[in-house]
Amino acid sequence: METEDYRVNGFIVSATVAGLKKGGVPDMALIVSEKESAAAGVFTTNKVKAAPVLLSKKHIRNGKARAIVANAGNANACTGEGGLQDAIFTAELVARGLGIESDQVLVASTGVIGQRLKMSLMEPAVEALVKGLSPDGLPQAAKAIMTTDSFPKISRFEGRAGGTPYRIVGFAKGAGMIMPNMATMLCFVLSDIRISAGDMETELRTCVDATFNRITVDGDTSTNDMVLMLASGFAENDPLTEYDRATFSEGLKSVLWDLSKMIVRDGEGATKLVSVEVKNAFSLADAGIAARTVANSSLVKTAIYGQDPNWGRILAALGRANIEMKEDRVNIWIDDVQIVSGGLGLGAAQENKAKEIMKGKEFALVIDLGQGAFDDRVLTCDLTHEYISINADYRS
Amino acid sequence: METEDYRVNGFIVSATVAGLKKGGVPDMALIVSEKESAAAGVFTTNKVKAAPVLLSKKHIRNGKARAIVANAGNANACTGEGGLQDAIFTAELVARGLGIESDQVLVASTGVIGQRLKMSLMEPAVEALVKGLSPDGLPQAAKAIMTTDSFPKISRFEGRAGGTPYRIVGFAKGAGMIMPNMATMLCFVLSDIRISAGDMETELRTCVDATFNRITVDGDTSTNDMVLMLASGFAENDPLTEYDRATFSEGLKSVLWDLSKMIVRDGEGATKLVSVEVKNAFSLADAGIAARTVANSSLVKTAIYGQDPNWGRILAALGRANIEMKEDRVNIWIDDVQIVSGGLGLGAAQENKAKEIMKGKEFALVIDLGQGAFDDRVLTCDLTHEYISINADYRS
Repeated sequence: METEDYRVNGFIVSATVAGLKKGGVPDMALIVSEKESAAAGVFTTNKVKAAPVLLSKKHIRNGKARAIVANAGNANACTGEGGLQDAIFTAELVARGLGIESDQVLVASTGVIGQRLKMSLMEPAVEALVKGLSPDGLPQAAKAIMTTDSFPKISRFEGRAGGTPYRIVGFAKGAGMIMPNMATMLCFVLSDIRISAGDMETELRTCVDATFNRITVDGDTSTNDMVLMLASGFAENDPLTEYDRATFSEGLKSVLWDLSKMIVRDGEGATKLVSVEVKNAFSLADAGIAARTVANSSLVKTAIYGQDPNWGRILAALGRANIEMKEDRVNIWIDDVQIVSGGLGLGAAQENKAKEIMKGKEFALVIDLGQGAFDDRVLTCDLTHEYISINADYRS
Repeated sequence: METEDYRVNGFIVSATVAGLKKGGVPDMALIVSEKESAAAGVFTTNKVKAAPVLLSKKHIRNGKARAIVANAGNANACTGEGGLQDAIFTAELVARGLGIESDQVLVASTGVIGQRLKMSLMEPAVEALVKGLSPDGLPQAAKAIMTTDSFPKISRFEGRAGGTPYRIVGFAKGAGMIMPNMATMLCFVLSDIRISAGDMETELRTCVDATFNRITVDGDTSTNDMVLMLASGFAENDPLTEYDRATFSEGLKSVLWDLSKMIVRDGEGATKLVSVEVKNAFSLADAGIAARTVANSSLVKTAIYGQDPNWGRILAALGRANIEMKEDRVNIWIDDVQIVSGGLGLGAAQENKAKEIMKGKEFALVIDLGQGAFDDRVLTCDLTHEYISINADYRS
């Protein structure tokens, strides 16, 4: 798509090279709302919260914001009181550059944990960011927030509220430390819709739960995860009807689900995107636990990498998931090829068909527990040699 | 040690090539008690239980046994009613060969899940096992039960009860699907001590909880885990005093801990053995959860492989463990080198010292939570390229 396809009325965006990432690549981004936006956020559930998470939670409390400043290369996590001061100072720099209040600035960071930000780099970087602001800057910003991501992740939705067109554009970064319960590390969503901050937060929470909280790369929840959404109101739509609200919610969910899939597809070292779909669980909680346990099992994930329909590992994972289950009620499919019926393998012919499907890049692993009427699904990827290489050498 | 060092009075042992493993290597073992032994067992907590687990739990209920027959290469798990009949038939073959009752025979299996045992191989194999029985057969049996293990695991303790000498010899196999809560796949312990089955079971449960339930390779609990213990009474000691009982318990624990360490050291693809020690947790449960969460984190395990004291990943794992914790109270050491104080890194000089320690094959990762007075520890290993290779190609 062209860069203008990612314009959102009321917002200007920029990116720059601050010097926080290696190799002189863009590593800072700035999003500015021309007027005050409605703002909502969803933040990591990890008890260790990075400084920018603590600060942005505070600044977003009133449901309003003017800017988001984000950096990659340094998470500003586990940096104590000094790190919090660094985040505050970054917000102040941005506020000064834009002539706004610093509590109108949200801050986000991603990268290595436990190192202080080089604040000497921040002043020139923020200056460059403010100078570079443009309606067409979003694709560059999506690149700037990448760490071990291999491609930028952007998604768009075009909707109408009472006949008035509006747009939702989201971008995210993921790759590692990805696990259900606020798992994106960073995602920013912009819209020109006119909506109250409270309504937007309700929709954002629902949509995040259905999307980002349903993906896993390695079962590790980050200290920095956040989804921030700003709505400028520039679409000047009338107050949302129930129908408009539903359309908006579906549109937002489609954008976040799209980004979720991109994050798993780009999981560190991943070669395959697998939807683990659990059906007919005893309870909704059981469905979620079963899907997450299978989706996080190292043995299942290595079997996926090996294109091996090793259903014994799936049954073993279900058996330790602490859910209601009876081995002889379980049916398992790879896409539409059934490989287990009543807890027993259906033999080599079916497994060979399943292997063919597993050679592809995307497929579903469908588990029917036969215990009740509850379904859930989680997106996962395979566990590969490349994951080990990336994570054994991350800081060196 | 010489093979006679692994003799236990009252027991004869053998191994043979049944043809269940590839490459014509020994894959079946038989342990026979010359008279009826006191017997105790601890079995997997996985809800999917292999046929031999179901059968042995039933046969051991009366606290007595005459024989254990074990095979590698096929787990006889997820094989339904037919698999249970195969396990029953195996016990009957052994009973017939030895002239005993089939409910005096315990059965254990390890290997691939979801395939039926080739019963045509069983009859000649059991015949060979019965013929080969010898007081010196234990080291061969330890080799026969190996799957992806790279070395046999045997440990011995010499004790005295009221002046009468006795011996405990245990052997085990591990390698993959290893995780706290009954984690060995298979372990057999023989002793010539005279002890009641009830007392032995109490001690066995306590010791398993302190040893095998404190190790993890990949967070996956097997469907086949079992620890079986037989005591022949041939030592003819007097009834155990409280002191004797304590000595026996310590001896048993030392044997099981020794085997636990061997299992982790030989974890699939593992190059390092790491003791994750959590101190001063708010509760005993918190201490255990914290140790297991860190010990199972893919990001921590890849950092160990990379010899990188990446303490940010340790803090992030603690933060998602759902325990009482405050970032600024956490101290972390690699052996005796402190790298984190009050939640903050102590800098490059300390990290470089820690890196030197991490180049070794064994070290401790010590975490002080500063929340209370409870400690726990879990043994883990690193997550390596070799783990991926072994598990992506396991069935091919």
